[in-house]
Amino acid sequence: MDIRIRQIKESDYDPIISVLDEWWGGRQMASMLPRLFFKHFSETSFLAEIDAKKVGFLIGFFSPTYDSEAYIHFIGVHPDYRKSGIGRFLYHHFFDVTRKHERNMIRCVTSPVNTSSIAFHQLIGFRTEPCTGDSSNIPIYRNYDGPGEDRVLFFKRL
Amino acid sequence: MDIRIRQIKESDYDPIISVLDEWWGGRQMASMLPRLFFKHFSETSFLAEIDAKKVGFLIGFFSPTYDSEAYIHFIGVHPDYRKSGIGRFLYHHFFDVTRKHERNMIRCVTSPVNTSSIAFHQLIGFRTEPCTGDSSNIPIYRNYDGPGEDRVLFFKRL
Repeated sequence: MDIRIRQIKESDYDPIISVLDEWWGGRQMASMLPRLFFKHFSETSFLAEIDAKKVGFLIGFFSPTYDSEAYIHFIGVHPDYRKSGIGRFLYHHFFDVTRKHERNMIRCVTSPVNTSSIAFHQLIGFRTEPCTGDSSNIPIYRNYDGPGEDRVLFFKRL
Repeated sequence: MDIRIRQIKESDYDPIISVLDEWWGGRQMASMLPRLFFKHFSETSFLAEIDAKKVGFLIGFFSPTYDSEAYIHFIGVHPDYRKSGIGRFLYHHFFDVTRKHERNMIRCVTSPVNTSSIAFHQLIGFRTEPCTGDSSNIPIYRNYDGPGEDRVLFFKRL
């Protein structure tokens, strides 16, 4: 399988956003991904293609506030291409670009219900941020992204 | 009225996100505003306070892709303090910070149903981006932020 990774472009937005909720098994995810991320963060966001078919993408940015940090906001992989290493490939590409810009900390968050995302992040070396007052196996930050929006917080030092 | 403007901090997120939908008259806006904007874009995001009461905020960033551009993602003003110039004050503060960083173009988008937002942007000097194939009074970019998510595109040169 010949995977090609390139920077994302604004013109990638329409084809991706129109299938996004489907890729996520019907979860309403499109509102988390306004066009601005494709338009203004193209240097740190990447598309994976196989034979010119869009099979995955990653949206990231370098934190303006924390100059050693990068943040991954979103990743999506085509359902027919899961478990083939595309997510890992995109993450490692982002790690490389982050290192080249002399940043050494990657952060991201995921929803506690997304157990496969939690497993994926642990597998590629992310650790969970401890959360005060939480005694569950995986630390959960309650209401992190607003009322009822709990998150697991991941970080990885490069 | 003594309005104080300061950079936003991550600790401002909980008090603001918990009242956000209420400030927006019940519209579900919280999903547009994950914590990452408060945490990672604090240099370009501002809080307005009157007597230590949070009365408004603006979330913006400098585009990494377009080095002359800044983008305003979100603004919120406490309902009791509308029409008192707080929105304008926040925008002008953002214009000043943008100028200091030698950027000269501000962009933002709003929903076509939000007529008061459209009027506000026009009043403070924003122009609408023409949209191909749209003949309405205000040009509307259909499905700009995903299926069914039409937007009016504003820009202002400093």
